[in-house]
Amino acid sequence: MARTWEVPETFLFGPDKAQKEVALDLYSSVEGLGIVAPHGHVNPGLLADPQARFLHPHDLLVKHDHYLFRLLYSRGVPLEALGVGQEDYDARAAWQTFCTHFHLFDGTPSGLWLRLELTRLFGVTEKPCAANAGAIYEQIDALLNTPDFTPRALYRRFGLEVLATTDPATADLSQHARAQADGFNVVPTFRPDAALHFARPDWRTNLQALEQCGGRSIERYATLLDVLRERRAQFKAHGARASDHDAAQVNLAPLSGGEAEKLFDLALGGQLTPEQAYRLEGHALFDQARLSAEEDGLVMQLHLGSVRNHNPLLFRRYGPDMGSDIPQRVNWTAGLRDLLAAFGNHPNFRAILFTLDESTYTRELAPLAGHYPALRLGPPWWFFDSVLGIERYLDAVTETATLHNTAGFNDDTRAFASIPARHEVWRRTVANWLARQVLRDILDLEEARHLARLTARELALQAYRFDSPVVAPVLAAST
Amino acid sequence: MARTWEVPETFLFGPDKAQKEVALDLYSSVEGLGIVAPHGHVNPGLLADPQARFLHPHDLLVKHDHYLFRLLYSRGVPLEALGVGQEDYDARAAWQTFCTHFHLFDGTPSGLWLRLELTRLFGVTEKPCAANAGAIYEQIDALLNTPDFTPRALYRRFGLEVLATTDPATADLSQHARAQADGFNVVPTFRPDAALHFARPDWRTNLQALEQCGGRSIERYATLLDVLRERRAQFKAHGARASDHDAAQVNLAPLSGGEAEKLFDLALGGQLTPEQAYRLEGHALFDQARLSAEEDGLVMQLHLGSVRNHNPLLFRRYGPDMGSDIPQRVNWTAGLRDLLAAFGNHPNFRAILFTLDESTYTRELAPLAGHYPALRLGPPWWFFDSVLGIERYLDAVTETATLHNTAGFNDDTRAFASIPARHEVWRRTVANWLARQVLRDILDLEEARHLARLTARELALQAYRFDSPVVAPVLAAST
Amino acid sequence: MARTWEVPETFLFGPDKAQKEVALDLYSSVEGLGIVAPHGHVNPGLLADPQARFLHPHDLLVKHDHYLFRLLYSRGVPLEALGVGQEDYDARAAWQTFCTHFHLFDGTPSGLWLRLELTRLFGVTEKPCAANAGAIYEQIDALLNTPDFTPRALYRRFGLEVLATTDPATADLSQHARAQADGFNVVPTFRPDAALHFARPDWRTNLQALEQCGGRSIERYATLLDVLRERRAQFKAHGARASDHDAAQVNLAPLSGGEAEKLFDLALGGQLTPEQAYRLEGHALFDQARLSAEEDGLVMQLHLGSVRNHNPLLFRRYGPDMGSDIPQRVNWTAGLRDLLAAFGNHPNFRAILFTLDESTYTRELAPLAGHYPALRLGPPWWFFDSVLGIERYLDAVTETATLHNTAGFNDDTRAFASIPARHEVWRRTVANWLARQVLRDILDLEEARHLARLTARELALQAYRFDSPVVAPVLAAST
Repeated sequence: MARTWEVPETFLFGPDKAQKEVALDLYSSVEGLGIVAPHGHVNPGLLADPQARFLHPHDLLVKHDHYLFRLLYSRGVPLEALGVGQEDYDARAAWQTFCTHFHLFDGTPSGLWLRLELTRLFGVTEKPCAANAGAIYEQIDALLNTPDFTPRALYRRFGLEVLATTDPATADLSQHARAQADGFNVVPTFRPDAALHFARPDWRTNLQALEQCGGRSIERYATLLDVLRERRAQFKAHGARASDHDAAQVNLAPLSGGEAEKLFDLALGGQLTPEQAYRLEGHALFDQARLSAEEDGLVMQLHLGSVRNHNPLLFRRYGPDMGSDIPQRVNWTAGLRDLLAAFGNHPNFRAILFTLDESTYTRELAPLAGHYPALRLGPPWWFFDSVLGIERYLDAVTETATLHNTAGFNDDTRAFASIPARHEVWRRTVANWLARQVLRDILDLEEARHLARLTARELALQAYRFDSPVVAPVLAAST
Repeated sequence: MARTWEVPETFLFGPDKAQKEVALDLYSSVEGLGIVAPHGHVNPGLLADPQARFLHPHDLLVKHDHYLFRLLYSRGVPLEALGVGQEDYDARAAWQTFCTHFHLFDGTPSGLWLRLELTRLFGVTEKPCAANAGAIYEQIDALLNTPDFTPRALYRRFGLEVLATTDPATADLSQHARAQADGFNVVPTFRPDAALHFARPDWRTNLQALEQCGGRSIERYATLLDVLRERRAQFKAHGARASDHDAAQVNLAPLSGGEAEKLFDLALGGQLTPEQAYRLEGHALFDQARLSAEEDGLVMQLHLGSVRNHNPLLFRRYGPDMGSDIPQRVNWTAGLRDLLAAFGNHPNFRAILFTLDESTYTRELAPLAGHYPALRLGPPWWFFDSVLGIERYLDAVTETATLHNTAGFNDDTRAFASIPARHEVWRRTVANWLARQVLRDILDLEEARHLARLTARELALQAYRFDSPVVAPVLAAST
Repeated sequence: MARTWEVPETFLFGPDKAQKEVALDLYSSVEGLGIVAPHGHVNPGLLADPQARFLHPHDLLVKHDHYLFRLLYSRGVPLEALGVGQEDYDARAAWQTFCTHFHLFDGTPSGLWLRLELTRLFGVTEKPCAANAGAIYEQIDALLNTPDFTPRALYRRFGLEVLATTDPATADLSQHARAQADGFNVVPTFRPDAALHFARPDWRTNLQALEQCGGRSIERYATLLDVLRERRAQFKAHGARASDHDAAQVNLAPLSGGEAEKLFDLALGGQLTPEQAYRLEGHALFDQARLSAEEDGLVMQLHLGSVRNHNPLLFRRYGPDMGSDIPQRVNWTAGLRDLLAAFGNHPNFRAILFTLDESTYTRELAPLAGHYPALRLGPPWWFFDSVLGIERYLDAVTETATLHNTAGFNDDTRAFASIPARHEVWRRTVANWLARQVLRDILDLEEARHLARLTARELALQAYRFDSPVVAPVLAAST
């Protein structure tokens, strides 16, 4: 028989008893605040359409979550057994497989999020295992068919103040418009990666999509830049406050105009070397920063340092986002030098830096953010959005950069229903970390309460320039 | 007068009092388990010969332990004063020198191991110092001449279930056979470094030894590979479950067959550049992985990232293993890419990764092991086999890779008598770390107990494919 | 109304209650020890002249402290508003601006130092804020005009045993002589960077200053080396025990004599490439080490790894030391290899290593210092001279290198009045760290007390070869 499963009041606090008490005090003061979600990967269609529904428990909770299935894959579970990459599969059997291996997530952030999500949202009272998998499936499935569990109902229940999605440069944005028209503060984020990753095999295809969207052919780099400028304006008109950029290395260095055009020519001809592609991408990212500083003020998010699709077998079979993106060493100090020389002191420019190389926290990122007015540090990203990851981040960056130079929290999730759980783990872990500082007389209680409030909500609003609402906010909570 | 020296029941636990209690509960549940030692450097001759004896306390405990004498050397103690590298020396005087400086090891892993070893095994009740050095020497020396302190008696007393040694490709393995014939589960590990480090000055000599052992001349790389294939089979027939490989960098990238032969030709002619040697080694390691995946299933241990013999003065005077091997930065994400593309999803292949670059724990190793089914993370290695080193490791890898993707513990020691102490420090430190997770409600007590058992013994058995015994196990403990 | 502001007896201890008690015991045993300040940037003129006075609170505490104004700059405060780089400004208005933003320093090392300094030294009882800024200014300003607050009075009150300044090779050293003549143990440190940074635009100007100081023209590298040798001797005659060196990378590799002269020729002609400058600097640093080992025994401090003046706008406007020096990744294992092969075992040579790349603590620095007799690890430097920075350092280096291979503490400050605060944070943090080891039975209380004394004072004296006083010590404390 499975054990009782619950979330105690002092969840994640301690280990010291006095620390638990102070942490609970701090957490209580922020527990009820609205949720600001300025960066994530939720499908905007969920909130555009009042009729949108979640398909079933396995689709909602497992099938699309590469945090979960990459770990199961590492332990020998075939992806097919989880329905991953399959149209037609037995969802209940896949859920059974998932629950049978649920203990593998003990102590992982996914395990903590699921514990919060299953108990709080769906009222599950037993830890999933082989024996209770079926019953839990039915319990959740039944709830998903009730009006309280539609995406829009959950948006309200979660107390979301704003939800930013991440969208290709070619996105039509009508879903965001529809959601906003009904009072949901769902805004797009401009992510032009597909057009700027010149070395990708599908780059030409992506460029064609952009040509279609931009209404003209793109035969020069300058034209590409113009089309992207127009798209940024469209995004901004739909409430976007930020752009988002992915690259395997930190490199934002401008080329001469002539060289950029020459490399773009080679790219069109499919003759770009990897080194040339790397330099052209650096130039293109620099130009996106220039647009931000000199024209539209979109906050530039830099999610850098991940080698995408490290496992070619899985990439060939299933495509991207299969949990085989692997971080590598990066160099922010050198890679941002040209960018910061140009725009680091510019009042209109803001970049938020996200790293997967924790050795750069104290060596590069905190000193950079503790000096340049244009920089903010993004919260611990991806593998580091975890209790210990958050603690390492706070330990590493606050003494040099201070929390004021961070962007607060963002959940970065494509799993809509996990949003409150992720913010709760962040808020609890921060509260416990602050409690430790209080017990050591590094902060007093009032200072800690102020920082708890900032990190829970306000810093995210400020960093992403959401100080004034994009659309009138919907009523939060208690629906 | 020296103080009383003892090991309290809650040794290494805390600092929180509640944490000590939970840690003691967890540790108690694994304290009595047998010891699995799947990687180390014990001399197999100790267990092959029933008449084998330890020479004397200084030879057993100090002279061959570069963890000890490198630190003393750093503090100005000449190696000669410790008998290092000397045939003829005054062992009691050397021991006196060691004990005079014993306080230097306060707070070091060596200090903790010696405290456990001297108190538990030899009944020493005072911390060594100049005043009591002679008496302690005589006390230990007397015990070493009793039947309870022969290597075979200690093997039984320690509760060893299996002990893997590390052996050159040319080892004749008869000692392992003799030990096994008498019921001692002592197995070899295949370490072909001498034949694959093409840039070493003694490579030609090493190759000749392999030619002798393999019964034919080796004039092509393909022949070298054939001879190694045969030797691997011999090792496997003697119970080996693993190979072991050392290199200063992470590089396992195949060359074309033609290029490998060309470089091998240059190596035979002594004309290989360092860069060519590096590439040929990478090719040769890749081929060892191929043999594992496609032929014999020997688990591939990769101990990578140490610059050997950094101090040329000591190397000229005393040879290798003088405590002057210094780690350097490595790149697992790039260096394993070809290997994992080829065999990372192969059901027969397994690699265990050991690093001296802790910055790779969260950035590279945990994401790799949390995705590829073929990978396991080796325990904290060498300088990091310490209380704080273990804690950093657990903090860094478990949230992303989970303990299930680790290889449990191995002691990696050449000091036979220190084996139980090293496993005890591991088990205690893990118990205390798990207790912390329990107090924060990240794990419940049952989950923590399960993980304590796994890490203490089972994960090592599984990772090294010792699930079925190599020879019938000898009776453990209580001798 | 501002809150009461105080420093409790157990400041920085805990969070565990038992840990606080042991930490207080340990700290009490070192609290009263004299202060050894073997590396810093205090202006020797403050102590040379009995009439020297501090200008006013803002000049003393804010204007010259780039730890403070770089953070304020990052939060949008213009440097002009703080009087930085300005001759003529309203000090009270600048102080008002500073106090208005004082809360930004909550939890930072600067905030902790200021709390200690303002409460202990100046009797401030409220945390600075906009409302009380003026009153605090007047309170401190009044004290600065009393005889108890002259630099010389504070030197005695602080219990300084020795204070080393950092001085260019061209310094005339008469200020040190005057201070010493009056019984103040103020010694210079030889820092020849200006003459050895061959790629700096002002290198030729710096070389001319050295020619003037050395009394001859410098047209060959060999002459440069001779002049520096003579200057080292002058420094030593004035009590110097150390040299100090800054470079953006770790590189101490000798060239052939012919190549060095050739590169020096190019430098004179302004034709050195950055790569050539890098190599010539490495050669010149190697030669400074040779002078230390073979001639004068000055301890070589290596402060390596900072990219100076990362922000060109601020450099153009205000010059260096504006808080925009940003660390980068370094490689000690490779960069020191030639140096250590030559002098790592030399009884006369000593190098103290300072890093801004914490990933090198466990990977490179602790293994190097735990082996080479010539090496000591400098205390956590700059951004890492903080509670958590000190804890990371202790955790990372002590198990492998031991505290005995460290150089104890140095405050590295240009803020004379902050010296006691910085040493107190170090001593308290070490005491708390040792207390944790005591509670886990890793150290006993006697061992911990011994290490507390070593780290508080003795290791610094030993590392910098201050075992015998340079001049007769002045009477410390209680003026």
